[in-house]
Amino acid sequence: MTTNSLSQRVSAGEPAAVARAISRIEDGSAGAAELMKDIYQLSRGALVIGITGAPGAGKSSLVDKLALLFRQRGERVGIVAVDPSSPFSGGAILGDRIRMQALGLDEGVFIRSMATRGNLGGLARATVDAVAILDAAGYAKVIVETVGVGQDEVEIVKAADVSIVVLVPGMGDDIQAIKAGIMEIGDIFVINKADREGVYATEKELEALLSLASRDDGWDPPIVKTVATENQGLDTLAEAIDKYRQTQLSASATSERRHAIARWRIVELMRERLLAQVLASDSSVAMLEKLADEVATRRRDPYSAVDELIANGTQ
Amino acid sequence: MTTNSLSQRVSAGEPAAVARAISRIEDGSAGAAELMKDIYQLSRGALVIGITGAPGAGKSSLVDKLALLFRQRGERVGIVAVDPSSPFSGGAILGDRIRMQALGLDEGVFIRSMATRGNLGGLARATVDAVAILDAAGYAKVIVETVGVGQDEVEIVKAADVSIVVLVPGMGDDIQAIKAGIMEIGDIFVINKADREGVYATEKELEALLSLASRDDGWDPPIVKTVATENQGLDTLAEAIDKYRQTQLSASATSERRHAIARWRIVELMRERLLAQVLASDSSVAMLEKLADEVATRRRDPYSAVDELIANGTQ
Repeated sequence: MTTNSLSQRVSAGEPAAVARAISRIEDGSAGAAELMKDIYQLSRGALVIGITGAPGAGKSSLVDKLALLFRQRGERVGIVAVDPSSPFSGGAILGDRIRMQALGLDEGVFIRSMATRGNLGGLARATVDAVAILDAAGYAKVIVETVGVGQDEVEIVKAADVSIVVLVPGMGDDIQAIKAGIMEIGDIFVINKADREGVYATEKELEALLSLASRDDGWDPPIVKTVATENQGLDTLAEAIDKYRQTQLSASATSERRHAIARWRIVELMRERLLAQVLASDSSVAMLEKLADEVATRRRDPYSAVDELIANGTQ
Repeated sequence: MTTNSLSQRVSAGEPAAVARAISRIEDGSAGAAELMKDIYQLSRGALVIGITGAPGAGKSSLVDKLALLFRQRGERVGIVAVDPSSPFSGGAILGDRIRMQALGLDEGVFIRSMATRGNLGGLARATVDAVAILDAAGYAKVIVETVGVGQDEVEIVKAADVSIVVLVPGMGDDIQAIKAGIMEIGDIFVINKADREGVYATEKELEALLSLASRDDGWDPPIVKTVATENQGLDTLAEAIDKYRQTQLSASATSERRHAIARWRIVELMRERLLAQVLASDSSVAMLEKLADEVATRRRDPYSAVDELIANGTQ
């Protein structure tokens, strides 16, 4: 099968083709770049919803319930779960399988866990590419869910059309740091598990933090209280998403945001490509291993090792 | 002042020189590479302790109490707090300032928060360089603390001599995913806030997970229970660190680990350097901005934008 026909099958909405296309860009296999050039031509303008927040905030339940709500409206929904644990454990902890029961038998829902393989990075790039594939396949809503508050995860959520930050009441000492870190990326804030103690305090604290922030698009990020497991507050959340989408379509600040996202995507992709170029040959990989031995045994510093690899790669 | 004399002042243990050297590598300013080549020559073999875990686990208190314990033994202690929130908020949330009262007036302790600036990445690289600077300055123990469980953070902790993973009782739904993700990097596991309910269940769950893992160095990762705020369990933790260090010095698997770390450091540094080369000129930065506009308005896909930038950069 040629890459071309794969992108055509993606465009026709075939789940097997979507799965194969995502695997191809995840592996960075031959033809991945050509495939993506085709895919970007087939963009249909899905609404991309990024959801992040601290571990234990109940993001998975929230995403599942939100997906069900969109399904009830008759929309097809793609879910990309970014799983930072996978470099070590081999993937898919969040699990396509775990969710099979609730959502997976519905053909209008496509669920995929993303993970890095090897240490050449590229998780962020692969994730935005997977979103583009789901968009081309006609999923009207694409939800990107990340565990953790690391830099990659934050970048991924920033690249969404709407970014949702999920908190829970009474999260402990680090909440201040987390909140401050995600203040600027949250278009909508959710306090999930809002039947727990401390919800009022968390809401007041969040309001105080939000009042300090200034946004140049005139949007005032709402705080939505949910109990995802009980299906409470999901309608309000969906309304907030719709409302933000409407504001965004008419705001001039959106173009700046789109520029920043595009710039980040190009840089991310270029970083990966340049590294792959230098390490393209077997001899350069062998050289990397030899230099890594020398650095490990302190016979050489990493900076001069890089000098040598780059000089070798550009010969 | 030349770079050379800066590295000499670092080696003499001057805090102001250490601070300046770290700022220089953080900014990636001219001379940073030369400085680091000197610094790596001055390595004294500090014990580098990486501490990670989910937000709210009380890592900061644990680090502070551990640092005080090392101080009581007469050792100088460097602390590097990696702060993923800073790309957005401008830095130092975890805060040198917050800790000033407890530790900062002690000249034997050096505390620094690390953050990325701009979107060229390099947090992981800058952090390991900061550790090397503290090592060269004669801090016998260097503690690297990260918030979050993102990929960068995990890599940073992996690069330490001893990796400590901090959990708390009853963390909620995502604990399984987090644990699985950090299983392979934890040399020592801490259950902090061990005066809380659910500590027994968390311990049993962790033991079950650990029994599934196999390590090729023969080390059986201990579980240490602490209440950092009450200074409980810190002695036991310090003993576990010492014991692991002893095992490590005699284990053959250590050299494989050092090789993997060195390889990662070289790749990370090279990634950054290659990108900086392509974006070195004003004209290439202007081209990036123009292409970002085209991608943002869907007149171009990011893959062909990268083709064009790389072609331009290598002319």
